[in-house]
Amino acid sequence: MQTQNLGSIAVVGAGAVGCYYGGMLARAGYDVRFLMRSDLESVRQHGLTIRSQGEEWHIAAQAAGTAAEIGPCDLVLIALKATANEALEKILPPLIGPRTVLLTLQNGLGNEEFLAQRWGEERVLGGLCFVCLNRVSPGVIEHYDHGTLSIGEFQRSPAERTSSIVAAFRESGIDAKVVQNLAEERWRKLVWNIPFNGLSIVGQSATVADVLADPGLRQLASDLMSEVIAAANALGLSIPGSFAEYQIERSASMGPYRPSSLIDWELGRPVEVEAIWGEPWRRGSSAGTPMPRLETIYRLLQRLCRGAAVG
Amino acid sequence: MQTQNLGSIAVVGAGAVGCYYGGMLARAGYDVRFLMRSDLESVRQHGLTIRSQGEEWHIAAQAAGTAAEIGPCDLVLIALKATANEALEKILPPLIGPRTVLLTLQNGLGNEEFLAQRWGEERVLGGLCFVCLNRVSPGVIEHYDHGTLSIGEFQRSPAERTSSIVAAFRESGIDAKVVQNLAEERWRKLVWNIPFNGLSIVGQSATVADVLADPGLRQLASDLMSEVIAAANALGLSIPGSFAEYQIERSASMGPYRPSSLIDWELGRPVEVEAIWGEPWRRGSSAGTPMPRLETIYRLLQRLCRGAAVG
Repeated sequence: MQTQNLGSIAVVGAGAVGCYYGGMLARAGYDVRFLMRSDLESVRQHGLTIRSQGEEWHIAAQAAGTAAEIGPCDLVLIALKATANEALEKILPPLIGPRTVLLTLQNGLGNEEFLAQRWGEERVLGGLCFVCLNRVSPGVIEHYDHGTLSIGEFQRSPAERTSSIVAAFRESGIDAKVVQNLAEERWRKLVWNIPFNGLSIVGQSATVADVLADPGLRQLASDLMSEVIAAANALGLSIPGSFAEYQIERSASMGPYRPSSLIDWELGRPVEVEAIWGEPWRRGSSAGTPMPRLETIYRLLQRLCRGAAVG
Repeated sequence: MQTQNLGSIAVVGAGAVGCYYGGMLARAGYDVRFLMRSDLESVRQHGLTIRSQGEEWHIAAQAAGTAAEIGPCDLVLIALKATANEALEKILPPLIGPRTVLLTLQNGLGNEEFLAQRWGEERVLGGLCFVCLNRVSPGVIEHYDHGTLSIGEFQRSPAERTSSIVAAFRESGIDAKVVQNLAEERWRKLVWNIPFNGLSIVGQSATVADVLADPGLRQLASDLMSEVIAAANALGLSIPGSFAEYQIERSASMGPYRPSSLIDWELGRPVEVEAIWGEPWRRGSSAGTPMPRLETIYRLLQRLCRGAAVG
């Protein structure tokens, strides 16, 4: 059942995203090696557990405490918080051989560039996860909803390897797909994340329903979306203006959903302020698009998330 | 010693501002009548106490529980929170005779208009208080610093009565002065209040020093000031752009000062969101000046101050 070219897979960042996608590949028989710190002993003894809509899978998992124990792999899934990217400078080198591919599943902008600058842009792919997950205890992942994984090449059209990786995820039960333009997918995701994740924190625990029910915040969310769309288009992408209204309307079904950044903030965990708000603002501004509302939210988030900014 | 034309004075809103300015007039021998609710019995028994930089004055005060007991006066000082303006529709009529003058000491924009629409614009004056006060218990006011009171006519040049009222305050030990253009003074005060009072709340207890020490918030404060100045000038006033930098620099000496709106917010008291942020944004916008940063702060304040918005 295994796809050619995909031998060993390392997973860096063993939070909910890394354990879920890596665990699903391991469950399907792929050679997946998890780099772990605090959860290492627990996963060595008990493996991983994924609970998903009434089912529960126990998965034997290879877990290592150092990258050197894992050694070079064909594919490295990077699922650390973007705020911890500097740690990758020490973590990744032992995992990288001549043909190793790096797939970042991180949020926001700048993560592919971080990898490309250090290990060569030809290695780099990005994936966007649309999934509701929680790590409830060491090695135990609760999967609530969704799970789509959209994978694209960094600044290139999809290649054969893109399809191979997507096929491996699909064989493992993940709704994966190839995206033609990774940058555009990232900006489309930001159209939602910038207002809803941002307002959830600066609005002091505002759920999606809270934002939609407050005429002022709803208008502000819509205006932030328009700023993001204008910036994306100034950068050469093509997102129609009506995408903002569509995103507002489709959010109604989410109810009192608490965006992941709000949960992180309330628990004192790092929030990816630069990847989700800072970098889009810098890119839009440098393309000549004024983004004063995003700038305001970003400045406030820098202050409000400072306590937890180093993760 | 008393100025002609200034016989009886009513004070509506017996918080720190009303008790301080009214109390100083009473101490100088003016016929001042305080309309009070919760502090009524205490002030009837013990009068007012003003403590100011080492001195302490005990002032016999006429206090009444209803406007009808006070009756028509020559001057009414209005020192209620702007959020309570609707209560004035019932309170003021018994205080108003044919020549009664209404002087609002309230913050922000819209208070003179509120009075003018109901009782005639020719009666209305506005005063800007630059003073650090606190009501420490019923009828007891602590005066920390400053005290300047700038008084002008609503949409008119100063008249003889303006000078008479200013003279009465000066006789009472208040550093009062006549302003030529009340609207411009209000906008100049907003240049400081909009960023520093606003960011103190949306920045979750950011003091003046916190805002100045954070490069992002300092820039945001400066950009908010520029929006306010541009709006004022679009409305026909004349505030130089350099006033923003001047206001930022003069704030350095304030240290960890907590703006009054922050104190109100932390204590769950009403915050004058419409007078300080909403009305300037509406006026600037209707004059064609984009104020996206002010709009963002305003939307957030509407949410964050909602619990206490009705006072």
